[in-house]
Amino acid sequence: MTIPDWQSGPSNRWSFQHVDEIVPSVALSRGQGPVLELVEAPATLGPDADGFLDRSYTDGIIVLRGREVLYERYLNGMTPTTRHLLQSVSKSVCSAVFGQSVGSGAVSVDEPVSRYVPELAESAYGDATVQQVLDMTVAVQYNEDYTNPDSEVQTHERAGGWRSSRPGDPVDTYAFLATLKKSGEHGKTFSYCSANTDVLAWILERVTGRRFADVLATDLWAKIGAEHDASVTVDASGFPMANGGMNVTLRDLARFGRVVLDGGTGPDGQTVVPPGWVADTRRGGDRAAAAESMGDVHPDGSYRNQFWMSGDHHGCFYGIGIYGQYVWMDPASDVVVAKMSSLPEADSDANWAEHVAFFDHLTHGVLAPD
Amino acid sequence: MTIPDWQSGPSNRWSFQHVDEIVPSVALSRGQGPVLELVEAPATLGPDADGFLDRSYTDGIIVLRGREVLYERYLNGMTPTTRHLLQSVSKSVCSAVFGQSVGSGAVSVDEPVSRYVPELAESAYGDATVQQVLDMTVAVQYNEDYTNPDSEVQTHERAGGWRSSRPGDPVDTYAFLATLKKSGEHGKTFSYCSANTDVLAWILERVTGRRFADVLATDLWAKIGAEHDASVTVDASGFPMANGGMNVTLRDLARFGRVVLDGGTGPDGQTVVPPGWVADTRRGGDRAAAAESMGDVHPDGSYRNQFWMSGDHHGCFYGIGIYGQYVWMDPASDVVVAKMSSLPEADSDANWAEHVAFFDHLTHGVLAPD
Repeated sequence: MTIPDWQSGPSNRWSFQHVDEIVPSVALSRGQGPVLELVEAPATLGPDADGFLDRSYTDGIIVLRGREVLYERYLNGMTPTTRHLLQSVSKSVCSAVFGQSVGSGAVSVDEPVSRYVPELAESAYGDATVQQVLDMTVAVQYNEDYTNPDSEVQTHERAGGWRSSRPGDPVDTYAFLATLKKSGEHGKTFSYCSANTDVLAWILERVTGRRFADVLATDLWAKIGAEHDASVTVDASGFPMANGGMNVTLRDLARFGRVVLDGGTGPDGQTVVPPGWVADTRRGGDRAAAAESMGDVHPDGSYRNQFWMSGDHHGCFYGIGIYGQYVWMDPASDVVVAKMSSLPEADSDANWAEHVAFFDHLTHGVLAPD
Repeated sequence: MTIPDWQSGPSNRWSFQHVDEIVPSVALSRGQGPVLELVEAPATLGPDADGFLDRSYTDGIIVLRGREVLYERYLNGMTPTTRHLLQSVSKSVCSAVFGQSVGSGAVSVDEPVSRYVPELAESAYGDATVQQVLDMTVAVQYNEDYTNPDSEVQTHERAGGWRSSRPGDPVDTYAFLATLKKSGEHGKTFSYCSANTDVLAWILERVTGRRFADVLATDLWAKIGAEHDASVTVDASGFPMANGGMNVTLRDLARFGRVVLDGGTGPDGQTVVPPGWVADTRRGGDRAAAAESMGDVHPDGSYRNQFWMSGDHHGCFYGIGIYGQYVWMDPASDVVVAKMSSLPEADSDANWAEHVAFFDHLTHGVLAPD
């Protein structure tokens, strides 16, 4: 770790396309199966697209309808073979593979986390249910202020290998997660916390008896018709940054979205993600719990199983990552949009709202007029 | 860097298949061209092969004749999609891409290194010619004792990101190379020194105006018909460990050997490596200079352009890496053998000789009886 703050702009204009060079990472092999072939079918995104793509620090954007590529553009040196950091879109990818263990019955979402990971019994997660972790309604003391060195999120990043460690830091992510304290009653409020996703990954390691990276690669990445290997950063113990450390090519992110939007069906018609998992996700989470966080952007929105529900009449849902990563899925127009960016700021409601408005405009308006 | 000595056995049984997880690495994209297809044509390697493969800590071995796969086997958890560390076989790969700049006239091998890299003027390389660097006849103080913390090779590894740094260490590989001192007269003796290859990579950065990893990926790896991305470890400045840090799949190493054995011709008949570079390499280096180092294993052997010449009547030549990595090419039988291993010891003449005897037995005897 030689770059003190590689995530912030303008460092991220370079770093998000070169994360493997900064943090040790494990390869997620695409396997040896066939690639999900995409067909070129050029369309225009409307008169205002260029301006938006420019001011939102776009590195790449692709728009699929079915398996047709309506639009694809690379900027800022990104290419079709460049892996780009997903940030918290990784959470949604983690959810997809987690859903397999729920579908098989290996995990019961109503059980407390400590049933699977006894090491977390004394932490905030001891009496939280798996579903609460999935829906981010765990009451946990976790300051997600990316600019504060004393925040839990920065400690998390140091334990996870994204920042140089300080004396007294937990030695790895497992140790960090066990330090997190309960802050109230679980299940009442949507409270976004990146640690939750790493807890899910730890649960998966326990129920499968395999390393999370192996589960992610073998059970998911090798089955979606990806064209390229992906990667995910690892900590000192080889545990991945499940909540935000994946790096994938733009087309492969769109292919992931394709599988989810197809109800979990892979390129050859096989089941990759249980259809029931996708359906449960799309039914959405508790709107009242999410209202305070999401109301300004999505008045009817909610959060479920590590995905964001727009609550709009198309039923659009998506994964989102700080600094501008998106995989947007519209069931009504059968459109998937994948966008990689390197914005100067981690998160801003204005930026979030502008992205949502752009995707909304595309999927409701330009490409599929109501 | 959390594993103090990941290269030595038995750590290397795991680590050589997981180097990206230990050291930050840059991806070398396979690009989007067609894969060099290989055809299965099973043959047997003779009655003694299993014993040799077992006692030489084999992780993978493949034998090609033309584009036919005569034999292919994975052990110790390696799979067809696993990238394995090449160690100094990386030097031969570096040579192939360096040959492009020689062939184009961008580099003159008779010029001193300092013409291209003025920063090295005061070092051992100041008045060494490029050809002397290629042939490892530079007189440089460089103790290649892998077990001595005060040796230049360990300092090199710390500067290159393979070991935790110590106070006073050079900040990166560039700084390290500039510290190396002359030890006598250049051009007299073959003196194996890993730093030489990194000097070649630095020269390439200067003459191309591009990062070495980009040159290696775009100009070579994307042109050999590789099936998978490769990777190479990088130091704190993003400079690759050109001399030993590449990680590739077994079949892709064999494909590299195929291109070299085909005189530099790629899968579609295009020129990837200048034929003149391959021919110059195969003519070999100064036998007298190499006699002391190679005489016991190859009485008529020599070293040229980062490849080892066996001096046998088939004209076999090869790349070799510590702990048992090989790409062996036999022009007479048109056979390429690629072998990945994780031997307990870095280098032993006995082990080297046994590998050579095995490849010799295969290519002169079992597969192509004289």
